[in-house]
Amino acid sequence: MPKDHWSRLNSDELQPIAGGGLLDRRLFLKQGIAFSVATFVGAGAQAGGLERPAWMLKPGEPFSNYGQPSPFEAGTIRWIASNPAAPGNGISWTPLQQLEGTITPSGLHFERHHNGVPRIDPARHRLLIHGSVKTPLVFAMEKLVRYPMTSRICFLECGGNSNAGWHEEPMQTAAGNMHGLISCSEWTGVPLAVLLEEAGLQPETRWLIAEGADAAAMNISIPVDKVWDDAILAMYQNGERLRPENGYPLRLILPGWEGVLNVKWLRRLQAADQPVMARNETAKYTELQPDGKARQFTFVMEAKSLITHPSPGHELQGPGIYQIGGLAWSGRGKITKVEVSADAGQTWANALLQEPVLSRSFTRFRIPWRWDGSPNVLKSRASDETGYVQPERDTLISRRGRNGYFHYNAIVSWAVHSDGRVSHVYA
Amino acid sequence: MPKDHWSRLNSDELQPIAGGGLLDRRLFLKQGIAFSVATFVGAGAQAGGLERPAWMLKPGEPFSNYGQPSPFEAGTIRWIASNPAAPGNGISWTPLQQLEGTITPSGLHFERHHNGVPRIDPARHRLLIHGSVKTPLVFAMEKLVRYPMTSRICFLECGGNSNAGWHEEPMQTAAGNMHGLISCSEWTGVPLAVLLEEAGLQPETRWLIAEGADAAAMNISIPVDKVWDDAILAMYQNGERLRPENGYPLRLILPGWEGVLNVKWLRRLQAADQPVMARNETAKYTELQPDGKARQFTFVMEAKSLITHPSPGHELQGPGIYQIGGLAWSGRGKITKVEVSADAGQTWANALLQEPVLSRSFTRFRIPWRWDGSPNVLKSRASDETGYVQPERDTLISRRGRNGYFHYNAIVSWAVHSDGRVSHVYA
Repeated sequence: MPKDHWSRLNSDELQPIAGGGLLDRRLFLKQGIAFSVATFVGAGAQAGGLERPAWMLKPGEPFSNYGQPSPFEAGTIRWIASNPAAPGNGISWTPLQQLEGTITPSGLHFERHHNGVPRIDPARHRLLIHGSVKTPLVFAMEKLVRYPMTSRICFLECGGNSNAGWHEEPMQTAAGNMHGLISCSEWTGVPLAVLLEEAGLQPETRWLIAEGADAAAMNISIPVDKVWDDAILAMYQNGERLRPENGYPLRLILPGWEGVLNVKWLRRLQAADQPVMARNETAKYTELQPDGKARQFTFVMEAKSLITHPSPGHELQGPGIYQIGGLAWSGRGKITKVEVSADAGQTWANALLQEPVLSRSFTRFRIPWRWDGSPNVLKSRASDETGYVQPERDTLISRRGRNGYFHYNAIVSWAVHSDGRVSHVYA
Repeated sequence: MPKDHWSRLNSDELQPIAGGGLLDRRLFLKQGIAFSVATFVGAGAQAGGLERPAWMLKPGEPFSNYGQPSPFEAGTIRWIASNPAAPGNGISWTPLQQLEGTITPSGLHFERHHNGVPRIDPARHRLLIHGSVKTPLVFAMEKLVRYPMTSRICFLECGGNSNAGWHEEPMQTAAGNMHGLISCSEWTGVPLAVLLEEAGLQPETRWLIAEGADAAAMNISIPVDKVWDDAILAMYQNGERLRPENGYPLRLILPGWEGVLNVKWLRRLQAADQPVMARNETAKYTELQPDGKARQFTFVMEAKSLITHPSPGHELQGPGIYQIGGLAWSGRGKITKVEVSADAGQTWANALLQEPVLSRSFTRFRIPWRWDGSPNVLKSRASDETGYVQPERDTLISRRGRNGYFHYNAIVSWAVHSDGRVSHVYA
């Protein structure tokens, strides 16, 4: 008779290394960690193999020029919040709780649009570089593709991601619906420094003012040092040309810096000695601090992590061994450590980091966990190569005060209930 | 007045380092390599910026739950060759000549199907592990996701990729239509070794016979040592669940080994002391050699490279500086070097390899090239960490004879004509 089995659970290797049932991450590197939720097979199945399902009894579907997800995955979608009176103004979130690995499928990359997604004819799109330059230049797309290119896997996170964390009560929703204004892609394009060198910046240049070709003409100011460092004029995302909602045909990519600076549908870069003081750097992205001063130009996204499995909406299937997994990232470089707690932060254990760990990119972490069925709280805490450690929520609030809205990167706590449900708590 | 300019082309740094106009790859790492095909801007544009295009004058399109490519990219598709009498039997190629970076979008991953793409309900899919095992086991998908997972970026190449290279005359088609039975994805799933450990192999086990849940019940034999090494039961591709045509909901991934072994829609693994001698290891994938013996079980895909830009179908826009770029890969490990020749193999220069260089994965290479407008021949040659060097076509034929059909990995030659066209030659 089929039955579940747990035969290897008494091994010494499976002793907890931290409270709440966390097990040694190195178990993942060995053969023989027995998650052991398979079903034994009777003699009949053993001899003949499984009975053939219906889909083996007739020819399958034909080839396709461009593939799509299975209809059984129709629930894996971006969650949209837009303005009914202006449907092109809003946000959509990446469903992080349904994804694995580190690459975000382009069709599920988060969106933030101010006045919709322009349908741009690449043959008619131009990039102007002007202002305090020696030689103002215009680039057509068919010329730009002749320049040297570079590829980089990096995350892109909205400065407003996770901002429900500032709420008095923990928001109850899927992990992606609260923290999914972040995605990670391989971007390919021309290093912007190459083009600035060609235009020749005047000595007084300190800022570049970037403008998009959307109907909002979204603009924002970027310190020119960042551009020399690693800015990319991306034309390709995950191997193919950018998706329209991610800036087709040209997007500015500033690895590790807040999303709003990564201007989509890029049409203009104006060199200047001062920032433009656009709506998105005055009315937005500026916050009053406890000392009465305002934070502005908070470009870098600090280290952060999130347990995606399990997370709210998932349901544990009774006591047993599970994998706790999630994502960590830092706008300052590489993730060096992700600690996980299964007892509300009393004790912590290091998770296994999936190689290769890339700078300013998603890092997937995983650790085995034996859940005994009792209520507890799961947390993850990221550290990066600068020594920065992701703060607890109380610490973040004590530093930033109650006027915070952007750059919320506190440790996230998931309560596991005895019935297997998972919910968001402040703990 | 607007004009093209080439002002920096006389710099010492731009002296050729090999014949045919190849330039030092390190120029890509410096600011100031002047590909210089931009257009100067008049005073009017300089003051006011570009005139606003039509798509800035009205709100754009709304948000989408799952994004799609721009309609302007409708030509970036898989090229399909299938049997009109059995439309689920055939091949589709990845359009490598239209892509950049190293990740292949899942919708453009190559396909090889024997009897179509089954529409599998994941709730009803099962994996059976049986045969010479101590404990035959059946896994439901919702159980399998509890096991420890790993992620890996690796290529997948059909053993028959590029086999038109054996033809007497060079095939004239886009690079992807001849060499595009290869793609590269981030796969995430359970190390198969974990499940085999749980089932317990009998000492006589040498092979695993894998079977898919398609209407052809495609099956093939895999040496068990490879499984212990790095086989993955993939459930996710590029972050999301597998696409149907890539094996949804479960695919065997054997990094670096020929595509046919990476069984899609995996339903059964039978441990055995001998291979099953299925159609795909006897009638196919077996070749007579010059010495009268047949090659069989040629699992590993050897090192190979391909210039994707420029390639047939691309047209150079007159003399000037271009980027030569392409892909290299090896089933035995990391690519250590890609040499490029712009004079039909007389001289070679090292291309820049895009970091990170990952084992058994696509490596993008790039090198600057000043084309003087005269006819010439471009080639690329990959080396891997085992010391293996991609052979010239003559060498490959002398080793393998004229009965070769699979595992064609010779150096590819593109002729550049004085009118800027590119064609395939044996040179």
